[in-house]
Amino acid sequence: MNKIVQCVPNFSEGRDLEKVERIVSGLKNQEGFNLVSYEPDGDYNRTVVTLLGNPEKIIDALVDFTKVVIDEIDMNVQSGEHPRMGAIDVIPFIPIENVTMDECVVYANTVAKKINEAYNIPIFMYAEAANQKIRVKLPNIRKGEFEGMKTKIKEDKWAPDYGTQEIHPTFGVIGVGARIPLVAYNIDLNTTDIDVAKNIAKAIRNSSGGFTYIQAGPAMLNERGHVQVTMNILDYKKNPIYRIFETVKMEAKRYHVEVTNSELVGLAPKDALKRSIKYYLQVNNIEYNKDMTLDEITKYSIEYLKFRDFDRLKIIESNI
Amino acid sequence: MNKIVQCVPNFSEGRDLEKVERIVSGLKNQEGFNLVSYEPDGDYNRTVVTLLGNPEKIIDALVDFTKVVIDEIDMNVQSGEHPRMGAIDVIPFIPIENVTMDECVVYANTVAKKINEAYNIPIFMYAEAANQKIRVKLPNIRKGEFEGMKTKIKEDKWAPDYGTQEIHPTFGVIGVGARIPLVAYNIDLNTTDIDVAKNIAKAIRNSSGGFTYIQAGPAMLNERGHVQVTMNILDYKKNPIYRIFETVKMEAKRYHVEVTNSELVGLAPKDALKRSIKYYLQVNNIEYNKDMTLDEITKYSIEYLKFRDFDRLKIIESNI
Repeated sequence: MNKIVQCVPNFSEGRDLEKVERIVSGLKNQEGFNLVSYEPDGDYNRTVVTLLGNPEKIIDALVDFTKVVIDEIDMNVQSGEHPRMGAIDVIPFIPIENVTMDECVVYANTVAKKINEAYNIPIFMYAEAANQKIRVKLPNIRKGEFEGMKTKIKEDKWAPDYGTQEIHPTFGVIGVGARIPLVAYNIDLNTTDIDVAKNIAKAIRNSSGGFTYIQAGPAMLNERGHVQVTMNILDYKKNPIYRIFETVKMEAKRYHVEVTNSELVGLAPKDALKRSIKYYLQVNNIEYNKDMTLDEITKYSIEYLKFRDFDRLKIIESNI
Repeated sequence: MNKIVQCVPNFSEGRDLEKVERIVSGLKNQEGFNLVSYEPDGDYNRTVVTLLGNPEKIIDALVDFTKVVIDEIDMNVQSGEHPRMGAIDVIPFIPIENVTMDECVVYANTVAKKINEAYNIPIFMYAEAANQKIRVKLPNIRKGEFEGMKTKIKEDKWAPDYGTQEIHPTFGVIGVGARIPLVAYNIDLNTTDIDVAKNIAKAIRNSSGGFTYIQAGPAMLNERGHVQVTMNILDYKKNPIYRIFETVKMEAKRYHVEVTNSELVGLAPKDALKRSIKYYLQVNNIEYNKDMTLDEITKYSIEYLKFRDFDRLKIIESNI
């Protein structure tokens, strides 16, 4: 059985699109994995790359990729709205098929060691790959960013997991980790009243007392002409999509606002969708088939979760 | 405007009912506050007392009450299922009317100082009255209980907020705090399948990824012949009753189980009920009157939250 991981390196260039092309070119048409997408963001000055496939092949490609980034990006002259501590800021590994989280931690350590040895870039291990509790949450490591890391890394507490207590002068440092897949998810409300989205976001998000694995906020979609509750689901097993969708519908009732649609941003694993489809099939007394096809998952997701702009390619496993 | 607080001292006797009567007798028919209830529990060997009224009058009564408890309870021979660190284990103050949380913190410190000075009992301040972060959660302080406190209190870290680092030899120590009202709340399911209650409890409780201020578990009610989701709502402002009730109904649908009723255990403040009534009135397009009477609150709670065994005396403010 083939082992499949998702790997989502983020690098600190999102404005110079020719440079972005040069950086990602070595990831295209490679044997053993797919470059599923790369999304440069000008405001953030950052590009999110999604790779899917064989972990060893991805690891080897990342070592070469790092060399290109060293040549293309100088963090001393880089700025953008997204916090960052390196020219490649993070490299998270995500288990998809026939791979455990523990194996992803091993892959993360393997690529960290290789990159450090090849280019003398210090590496911090985070999330499931963290070696210290304070390093589980990436923002703790990244606090101070590229500029602050020059002195922070010299503190005993912030010695890197790989490498010396000296940042790479133009590249900075990298956070390498392992985690379960995030689901980036938005729910459409047929109103332009941003306060409704704000109140509903507060009801569901962890920081206001809501569900533990939900980060949420309001957003106004000017072109579409309505508001959204926009969120990250950090653990779709403990906070399944349907539970959030139904809770938002329940809260929306008091404002006499309709939940018209919802949407995935980026990809989601089929497991995240199947868990929610199972709820609706049970409610509707329809037998749940755990081996349903990707097309069935697509159909049910549109029917029950009211996904818009959705097709089977948004399911991670469609891209394997 | 009269200041009204609720105060809920817990003492460590729940089996010898004559002793319980002697202990609470000094709290009956006092000027300035009501003894709303006292509920001895044999398994716990503990009695929960609910006082309601003028804070200064309650403080004075608690000092005398402590003297009676010193004479009646020897912790060296006490045992029960509930963890405890003193003959009076805790004294929490809860703001009800015309009183702020900050004032309750002052009342808590006032009674702590008086009791310590009168009887040389060490006092730990907890919850909103805590002086250190680690003391916010009572279980951190109480860990080790009466027996372990003899040595724990001598650690620098566990020096009491009032008194010396030496427990009272027969009484132990007291935790004195200030907090918002807890709502103890149960939701009835018309099934005898305890797994359904277990799964639903997991969906809503903080420890499994649910709402931040919900502690919940399953319970089988043998006499009534059905299961319940039983819970404490630690902050009814951030996790209002209706949101939990509606989420439980939503989860129950997948099991084709009906939510038949719900019930309060002990008292709840009218604010907790009004916040939920407001939701249902908005949903039903009925005008919400913030000055509704206690009888209206009672009627709507039964109608919308399906409270059983409920009357207006279960609203704290009915007992003022």
